[in-house]
Amino acid sequence: MKLSQKIQEMELSPIRKFVPYADQARAAGKKVYGLNIGQPDIKTPRAFFDAVQNFDQEVLAYANSQGIPELLEALVGYYKRIGLDFEKKDLLITNGGSEALSMIMTAILDPGDEVIMAEPFYTNYKTFIKAAGGNIVAIPTTAEDGYQYAVREKIEGVLTPKTKAIAIINPGNPTGKVLTKEEMDLIIDIVVKNDLYLICDEVYREFVYDGKSMSTFGAYKEAAQNVIIVDSVSKRFSACGARIGSIASKNEDLMKNLMKICQARLCVPTLDQVGSAALYNLDPSYFDDIKKEYEYRRNVSVEALNEIEGIKYGVPEGAFYLFPKCSSFFGKSDGETTIHNSTDLAMYLLEKGHVATVGGDAFGDAECFRMSYATSDENITEAMRRIRDVLAKLK
Amino acid sequence: MKLSQKIQEMELSPIRKFVPYADQARAAGKKVYGLNIGQPDIKTPRAFFDAVQNFDQEVLAYANSQGIPELLEALVGYYKRIGLDFEKKDLLITNGGSEALSMIMTAILDPGDEVIMAEPFYTNYKTFIKAAGGNIVAIPTTAEDGYQYAVREKIEGVLTPKTKAIAIINPGNPTGKVLTKEEMDLIIDIVVKNDLYLICDEVYREFVYDGKSMSTFGAYKEAAQNVIIVDSVSKRFSACGARIGSIASKNEDLMKNLMKICQARLCVPTLDQVGSAALYNLDPSYFDDIKKEYEYRRNVSVEALNEIEGIKYGVPEGAFYLFPKCSSFFGKSDGETTIHNSTDLAMYLLEKGHVATVGGDAFGDAECFRMSYATSDENITEAMRRIRDVLAKLK
Repeated sequence: MKLSQKIQEMELSPIRKFVPYADQARAAGKKVYGLNIGQPDIKTPRAFFDAVQNFDQEVLAYANSQGIPELLEALVGYYKRIGLDFEKKDLLITNGGSEALSMIMTAILDPGDEVIMAEPFYTNYKTFIKAAGGNIVAIPTTAEDGYQYAVREKIEGVLTPKTKAIAIINPGNPTGKVLTKEEMDLIIDIVVKNDLYLICDEVYREFVYDGKSMSTFGAYKEAAQNVIIVDSVSKRFSACGARIGSIASKNEDLMKNLMKICQARLCVPTLDQVGSAALYNLDPSYFDDIKKEYEYRRNVSVEALNEIEGIKYGVPEGAFYLFPKCSSFFGKSDGETTIHNSTDLAMYLLEKGHVATVGGDAFGDAECFRMSYATSDENITEAMRRIRDVLAKLK
Repeated sequence: MKLSQKIQEMELSPIRKFVPYADQARAAGKKVYGLNIGQPDIKTPRAFFDAVQNFDQEVLAYANSQGIPELLEALVGYYKRIGLDFEKKDLLITNGGSEALSMIMTAILDPGDEVIMAEPFYTNYKTFIKAAGGNIVAIPTTAEDGYQYAVREKIEGVLTPKTKAIAIINPGNPTGKVLTKEEMDLIIDIVVKNDLYLICDEVYREFVYDGKSMSTFGAYKEAAQNVIIVDSVSKRFSACGARIGSIASKNEDLMKNLMKICQARLCVPTLDQVGSAALYNLDPSYFDDIKKEYEYRRNVSVEALNEIEGIKYGVPEGAFYLFPKCSSFFGKSDGETTIHNSTDLAMYLLEKGHVATVGGDAFGDAECFRMSYATSDENITEAMRRIRDVLAKLK
């Protein structure tokens, strides 16, 4: 019995690779500072749990394949408040943003088709695209160039007859890059001219700092047929364990075909949809508080990073990740362990400092490593202090 | 922009196709008898809701990609009670049996690979296999031959170099066919000799009637590398809306590779896992009560069906579906509407009698239609009476 070629080409998540080691350290009574996963420690709004507890049906029945009406209506309201006129028929509820991405790739990619993405990018895109038979074509970016990828020559330079879509994570994970209005205009121009789908992962939409705000690709009427918005309650409402995401698009043909997959998997869990409807109905002031908190954590992180020698990084404009360059440590040793790459470094930080991070090769840049600042400022400060002390031993 | 070939080859679920019409009739104040979906009306055990309500963490965090330890342990216990020695490492929790099937197909099928299935079969298999690039090779069976497919010549006759797996729904959906020990021995012999995966969908395992019981393919040690068991809480515990399923296999290589997909989609909803752990920990007497109830409903259904002229059917040995032959009505008319096929018939029953069923073409036998008897005996009796009256008008 042979496994499929595509599953053999997939990889275990580098983000979750360190989980067993962290579990081991925790089991040995050590506190582990988990900067590896984007798991906020902010309390899930009480409204979610209240709605779940108030569920009074005696049979936990299948939901509609599209999603329960209350959640679809709440989502319509949320989009309306940010200026988008998606109607219920333009929406599908999914098992997290992950299923949304997986469904979209299945719907648009034939074997060998290409999706353009700025690199570094959130690593799980690889699995979804590979599972659908496609390939990522990367546009490399670095902290030095401000993680810029929305440059006409850069994008048009990688277009081929196989290009089916551009996928944009905005704000960027792991870069924190937020697109300007001009950059978004350019991308819209390219997808319309070249008849490409534009997959817009805007799950960190509210987390944009320094008094700036971001536009959404959903606002471009001229590209309404191209644009597919992926969303999720995970980060926005600190409800990662609810696994509620969605797809929004005005492209009727696409939505009708996506429904085939939705119906085959029957539906998304009922209780989590009930709870998530309450989340999308929260007063918009909730986002102000959350944004303020993450901006504070970013500032704490950045200040602490400045104290660490040998580390270079771009200050993130949004989301809650840092992606510092650590290649100055490659080849260095504490006498016992030599660091050859960023995965070595991540393992070293975990073993010596009990700080979990992720090697950057997983995101397409092996000279960097990823840290999430979704955890409390006390945890961030202590974790950064440990990173500084551990790295100082490398000569 | 062109959609992928594979999504164009998929179909909307014929089971859910009638939902909008049924909704319309309900909106007009009519009671609709929903025999189309296998949605039990039996109360979900209180233990599920109690466990969910007792969840006291303030952050609804990501779960482990494999599943939460409590649920894995409860599942180990459940399997132990039916004589199977699956350990935690042999299990993966999935978003319903649906995701389990979708993951398995992705892991084992290369483009053009074949999966052998007895026809008629649960229609969503087509979508999962098509999405993975594979094809179903059907072994046709009929009520007249007792839905027999475990016959050496039948199976060996359709083996090709592209055959990758045999998928078995046991008890059958929509046939209610339950495999004998001898039939199971034969299938095991064939998969071992031909080095095939054996995908065993045993979600109706407890629903076997007439004092019989069924074995599980998980018990064959000689085929431990071939066997992949798909399971779900949906039917067994009347918890369809929890969307909790699982994969069990002793094939380490397969399980390690499936973990790649599990990690990419991060995890299954936390609360539904907490609730489902409580379900798997229920006293086994729960199954006796449920089985008794479904057997009673089957008997009520069968008696009522006997009153309907022109209908032929095989008495189901398990699960909760009937798949009667209705081709004697093809070409008949009430003066206004003429019935050409089983989908016409299903639509006619819905419009004239407000009884929702599913045309059999979706399951691979257009001469039949599917009814579920997961609803109450009062509903079944009234629905059958309506079917009888409506069909009596066709001349």
